[in-house]
Amino acid sequence: MSILVVGSVGLDDVKTHAGKVENALGGSAIYFSTAASFFYDSIRLVAVVGDDFPQEHLDFLEVRGIGLEGLEQIQDGKTFRWGGDYTSDLNAATTLFTDLNVYGDFNPKLPEAYKDTPYVFLANINPELQLNVLRQATTPKLIVCDTMNLWINNSLDALMQTLSEVDILILNDGEARLLTGESNLIRAGKQILTYGPDRVVIKKGEHGAISLTDSTVFTAPAYPLESVSDPTGAGDSFAGGFLGYLASVGETSEATVRKAVIYGAVVASFNVEDFSLNRQRRLTRSEIEDRYHQLYEAALF
Amino acid sequence: MSILVVGSVGLDDVKTHAGKVENALGGSAIYFSTAASFFYDSIRLVAVVGDDFPQEHLDFLEVRGIGLEGLEQIQDGKTFRWGGDYTSDLNAATTLFTDLNVYGDFNPKLPEAYKDTPYVFLANINPELQLNVLRQATTPKLIVCDTMNLWINNSLDALMQTLSEVDILILNDGEARLLTGESNLIRAGKQILTYGPDRVVIKKGEHGAISLTDSTVFTAPAYPLESVSDPTGAGDSFAGGFLGYLASVGETSEATVRKAVIYGAVVASFNVEDFSLNRQRRLTRSEIEDRYHQLYEAALF
Repeated sequence: MSILVVGSVGLDDVKTHAGKVENALGGSAIYFSTAASFFYDSIRLVAVVGDDFPQEHLDFLEVRGIGLEGLEQIQDGKTFRWGGDYTSDLNAATTLFTDLNVYGDFNPKLPEAYKDTPYVFLANINPELQLNVLRQATTPKLIVCDTMNLWINNSLDALMQTLSEVDILILNDGEARLLTGESNLIRAGKQILTYGPDRVVIKKGEHGAISLTDSTVFTAPAYPLESVSDPTGAGDSFAGGFLGYLASVGETSEATVRKAVIYGAVVASFNVEDFSLNRQRRLTRSEIEDRYHQLYEAALF
Repeated sequence: MSILVVGSVGLDDVKTHAGKVENALGGSAIYFSTAASFFYDSIRLVAVVGDDFPQEHLDFLEVRGIGLEGLEQIQDGKTFRWGGDYTSDLNAATTLFTDLNVYGDFNPKLPEAYKDTPYVFLANINPELQLNVLRQATTPKLIVCDTMNLWINNSLDALMQTLSEVDILILNDGEARLLTGESNLIRAGKQILTYGPDRVVIKKGEHGAISLTDSTVFTAPAYPLESVSDPTGAGDSFAGGFLGYLASVGETSEATVRKAVIYGAVVASFNVEDFSLNRQRRLTRSEIEDRYHQLYEAALF
């Protein structure tokens, strides 16, 4: 069985108090795939890049076992680029530039061999495109979805249609409040469950996460990090660890989902320790297990 | 053995989205004592009121087993009064008025019989007065302290002296950041440990709390409340549940302190469900145990 991810692949310029990188590998589908690949060895990436996309990044993805059949390379096209500055607030980047380039015309097309992928992650793309993906998926077993303020504000009808068709929505606290108009996160989460998903996972950054169904509440701790170098990709790394673990176990009982939330938080906590994918490049499964255990100990009472 | 609390007793006017109360029983020492009295039957209150303080409130405290020998009543004096409005932000009251009255000249004097009290809670009063209390306490076994922005900004020297003499500091996230200049709460907590306390408990409202020592980190969940009627007194109720439980067990191992943090969070979660002490008035120990168990289940992974 495999995990399908549809999202962005890009080259980022990022500046934080800890330094800066230019033309660094980024994009939601990249962070997700890399994180998921620590748990599961069959990841299928659907995205688009230009012919300027460095071969070394393709090599990196292949080494991680990430299938690239669905990665469209546009001749004479340029890869999506984004520049962000976190120096004044680690929780919110100031966008310096967004060059959509080939990503502006992205219309995801699943390779024939990908259509029956059981686990589907719809990264933070236009909900119209998320719906297009769902129309192509023939036998999804579990559909997990992300979204953002832009789509809540500008494409709410399509987003609500997507939500009516997904199993799990992962979003952050600000997005949950914006989507529902509820300031209380438990009420916001319960409201989101009425939109369609069986489960909602609300991420709260340094405060952990809440995972809700109609009959369960899980208050997940955050790993107590003392410093963050670059928050870019934390949410997608969380989703990758989360769905990668779920797929590796093959079921979604409450106990398994709770462990998946913690694995997601652990991978995200590593990801923010360095720029781009740099920390994940040198991360090992044994480091993940150690930190999982530390978080278990920190939360025990 | 007993618990000594030195703090404010007042009459509050409070307005929130859920309604309002006038001349309602309030003050840090009241919330603390009431919360602690669910766990421990010997609470000693040191505070000051005017001769306008209603007899019914004294009766309430006596019924809870709270010793009033240290509650000074000033003839022809008026009780401390505070008015707050939370209608625009449940996390921060707009102060409508503060009439210090007899509290303006408060200089806590421990009754002779109270001087050897082993458990001491210094509620959120001027650190000069906190130090005066410590000078009178002959054999404290455990000193727990609260503070606030006002003293961090205006009485930092005295506050630092107090901190050098206490065992546990309880404060909220904003206060921890202000006191240390550190935005990361783990680093802020570790910084505070260098000021003297063996342990710091940083409260994060709806996000739970962090309890830190030199060698341990506890990430405590918050009870997932769906609505808050009146946040007044939440922090003092937390401290009361916390120290009440610790005193009832009689030791401060990491495991016991973690349970105490959860009991504190549970009592605080009840307190905010109604105005003034109204929820605590009808609260039972069995409701506390039920919610403790629910929180245990919500945090389990």
